[in-house]
Amino acid sequence: MTSKDEPATQPPGDGFHVFDTTLRDGAQREGITLTVADKLTIARHLDDFGVGFIEGGWPGANPRDTEFFQRARAEIPFRHARLVAFGATRKAGVSVADDPQVRALIDSEAPVVTVVAKAHDRHVELALRTTLAENLAMIGDTVAHLRAHGRRVFVDCEHFFDGYAANPDYALDVVRTAHGAGADVVVLCDTNGGMLPARVQAVVRTVLADTGARLGIHAQDDTGCAVANTLAAVDGGATHVQCTANGYGERVGNANLFPVAAALELKYDRRVLPAGSLREMTRISHAIAEVVNLTPATHQPYVGISAFAHKGGLHASAIKVDPDLYQHIDPELVGNSMRMLVSDMAGRASVELKGRELGYDLAGDRELVGRIVARVKAQELKGFSYEAADASFELLLRAEAEGGPQRFFRLESWRSITDQRSDTGCENEATVKLWAKGERIVATGEGNGPVHALDQALRAGLERTFPELARLQLVDYKVRILEGRQGTRSTTRVLITTGDGTTEWATAGVADNVIAASWQALDDAYTYGLLRAGVRPEE
Amino acid sequence: MTSKDEPATQPPGDGFHVFDTTLRDGAQREGITLTVADKLTIARHLDDFGVGFIEGGWPGANPRDTEFFQRARAEIPFRHARLVAFGATRKAGVSVADDPQVRALIDSEAPVVTVVAKAHDRHVELALRTTLAENLAMIGDTVAHLRAHGRRVFVDCEHFFDGYAANPDYALDVVRTAHGAGADVVVLCDTNGGMLPARVQAVVRTVLADTGARLGIHAQDDTGCAVANTLAAVDGGATHVQCTANGYGERVGNANLFPVAAALELKYDRRVLPAGSLREMTRISHAIAEVVNLTPATHQPYVGISAFAHKGGLHASAIKVDPDLYQHIDPELVGNSMRMLVSDMAGRASVELKGRELGYDLAGDRELVGRIVARVKAQELKGFSYEAADASFELLLRAEAEGGPQRFFRLESWRSITDQRSDTGCENEATVKLWAKGERIVATGEGNGPVHALDQALRAGLERTFPELARLQLVDYKVRILEGRQGTRSTTRVLITTGDGTTEWATAGVADNVIAASWQALDDAYTYGLLRAGVRPEE
Repeated sequence: MTSKDEPATQPPGDGFHVFDTTLRDGAQREGITLTVADKLTIARHLDDFGVGFIEGGWPGANPRDTEFFQRARAEIPFRHARLVAFGATRKAGVSVADDPQVRALIDSEAPVVTVVAKAHDRHVELALRTTLAENLAMIGDTVAHLRAHGRRVFVDCEHFFDGYAANPDYALDVVRTAHGAGADVVVLCDTNGGMLPARVQAVVRTVLADTGARLGIHAQDDTGCAVANTLAAVDGGATHVQCTANGYGERVGNANLFPVAAALELKYDRRVLPAGSLREMTRISHAIAEVVNLTPATHQPYVGISAFAHKGGLHASAIKVDPDLYQHIDPELVGNSMRMLVSDMAGRASVELKGRELGYDLAGDRELVGRIVARVKAQELKGFSYEAADASFELLLRAEAEGGPQRFFRLESWRSITDQRSDTGCENEATVKLWAKGERIVATGEGNGPVHALDQALRAGLERTFPELARLQLVDYKVRILEGRQGTRSTTRVLITTGDGTTEWATAGVADNVIAASWQALDDAYTYGLLRAGVRPEE
Repeated sequence: MTSKDEPATQPPGDGFHVFDTTLRDGAQREGITLTVADKLTIARHLDDFGVGFIEGGWPGANPRDTEFFQRARAEIPFRHARLVAFGATRKAGVSVADDPQVRALIDSEAPVVTVVAKAHDRHVELALRTTLAENLAMIGDTVAHLRAHGRRVFVDCEHFFDGYAANPDYALDVVRTAHGAGADVVVLCDTNGGMLPARVQAVVRTVLADTGARLGIHAQDDTGCAVANTLAAVDGGATHVQCTANGYGERVGNANLFPVAAALELKYDRRVLPAGSLREMTRISHAIAEVVNLTPATHQPYVGISAFAHKGGLHASAIKVDPDLYQHIDPELVGNSMRMLVSDMAGRASVELKGRELGYDLAGDRELVGRIVARVKAQELKGFSYEAADASFELLLRAEAEGGPQRFFRLESWRSITDQRSDTGCENEATVKLWAKGERIVATGEGNGPVHALDQALRAGLERTFPELARLQLVDYKVRILEGRQGTRSTTRVLITTGDGTTEWATAGVADNVIAASWQALDDAYTYGLLRAGVRPEE
């Protein structure tokens, strides 16, 4: 439990399995729909991270999964992971050799197959509509058949914990049958996610003692305990953990791969990933979120941008003494970093620390810090949030430090027009009227949306005066509707991320109008970019 | 562990404390800034929910918290909760009677005070800069002083678990001192959030045996185990749990009140809330999210809109047999409900179930179901998501069932203009040209944003023809930027919620342009509203 140390250095072997099912079970999350290209990209990230097994989907169940296995074999030079096909036991009353679904598992050429088996007697009778004995035969036949075809077999015992509570003898028979037929790992699944850690640990321990099978755990997060349930199963003797990246999965989700891996490596001091992998965790978590098109969860343990962010004034002053007093691990161990937040709760200490982070020593100037704090509070009242807009905060700080805003141009007016005819697409046009270096500029831009058109107009207007703008690129654009508390009209906050090829910065705009808010964020984005490029602002 | 039953009926007494610190520790979450009015609203919700204690803030530390205690006393007729003031032990080397911070705690007139005390020797020396003995004296003096003023006192032992690992004797001395001086509960805090359940349970059990003090638990979620750590402490003998609504809190957050309360009531069968409270949980969770101006977390255990949502085709067909096979509790116990999701993964069974939910029996028409599934897949490829837009899905379903879209008007064109001058505010104007009931309509609207103006123009154009529109109101408007994978241009998805005073419905629009996407969602919103009002569409 020496959390500050690097993990131990022996390589992870077959003794402990980190098994990822993002591509199969994770894809069941509400809002996720993966293309084959998405699945291939995620598989590369997971292999980079160093999981031992990647469950890619259910070949034969849909054309996308069948194609994924073909292309993954051909296109991905796996360094750490083995590819796993997921499927069911043979149908009741059919010979396993004649079952097309089992055939598709073999045809996928995946070296490992996970077979899902019913372990709860009611499910066998009501959902599968067969006898308890036939279900056992289906499990035994399917495992033996896949083994005979040279596959390594894991068996997922669906609804195991509920089944064990209802009919322990039958649930144990399922484990024994799978084990006896040659399954390498028998995975106990909390499919409905209702378990708590103490119960999981006790059941795993009993099943291990009773059957001698190698056990795995698959936990859903319906009680908010999937990570703890997974670790409890390890405490009980499981040596195979099934997880998904960022905890994606049906309903609440699955056990989150990242906190499980981090706890095993850093808290259990157990080597479950290749050396160096843990430091990639934050990057890989965010990259996978991008591929599935979800915003990375800001408050996710270890990898969220808030995971090591400090806001409270009490803490902020103590952190200046010794940061290790206030963090459970060094964030760099998981590729994350400590952040100080600018907020009206934190006050002077946070502003000083944030200033230092940005390269300004404010400690000597109490009056300046006071002005900055007051300005931040006033802006936050309007709906601004500087926590995610460092560049806008830095412009605010410089404006206070240097006696006025840093400006490269002065707005006279802008106009945005969007036209839609039923028979053609949408057309967007914007016109800006500006003053820069004493000259009046009128420029028009078109775009695929009103903000894009405004951006194009601004660039067209300024590019002759400031050729440095050519290097700047809009990287990301986010809109947040801040709902009116008493049903009044809402406010819009826009966050824009801009890059110059070497670094990126974020700016914010707030208005009761999405275009006006975008204008503010664009104005800050280009102003900051020109300052970074070394251009001197107007007096 | 009879999860399907209602909780037991004996009322919760002082034997077990559900202690909420949303207003103090929860407010440290990145992105949350609470006004006094917000705090009062949240306190009412928490009292409605039936927590035993509401920690309202640190009176004296800032004017907002001081005002909160004054107003809460005067304005809120608490039914279940007692108000708690939070503060620190007296300063080193000062008499407790002369410490203004301790004075402010008494002046707050809160009947209960939580005193935070250092329990980790390094923190005493480095952050507090006093001796270990003086720290104990500070704790003893402060507790005794508050007791002498008639206050009930809880002591939060900050960094207890880390401190116990570093210097167990000193950490135990802190507990004994607080207990001996008259603290009712000594709360063991995992301030840095690095603990795992097994360790928490073992430490709580040992401290209880060694000191005999009544123990509480305060867990942060940095390992993703705060709920499990809280329950592990209860397993170890703690009878006081400190939580925050929706798990809000610094960094990753605090132990989430809702899954902790639900687990205690439904899984432990322990009565910790007033009768009937649990059924209010989903509503209260979402209401508090609205007050703090965060979107309710969709995947939160028990209360998230996805918590009982089913997507997988495999599950969807089994759910038709018996829903209880696939849920760990009846969602109505926590005020939530099961939802079937329409998505290309689920296929025919989900579409049939969703149809039934909406009042259409599709089971007999395989060909129609096939057309709907194909149409949903095609739309999802464009970026549509019907999971959150039931009304748009129903319009799609009706269009397939009835041989064409249901229409009340036909668009010729629309135009949106937004103007900004540096010296005045922003002006938004929109013009629509439509055909309805054989008539050509041209109408213009103004608004505080381009979408509002478009909505006003549409209403102005249609209100004579369809007076039913007067009852419809836009309730919510959300924008999501679907990021382009390879840095290409992005797509915008808009979700609009509309109400008619008795019910609400959600519609979606997708385009590469926020205004065009909004138009689609508005079109669906009004079409659906007119259908609901019983107006017959055009042929």
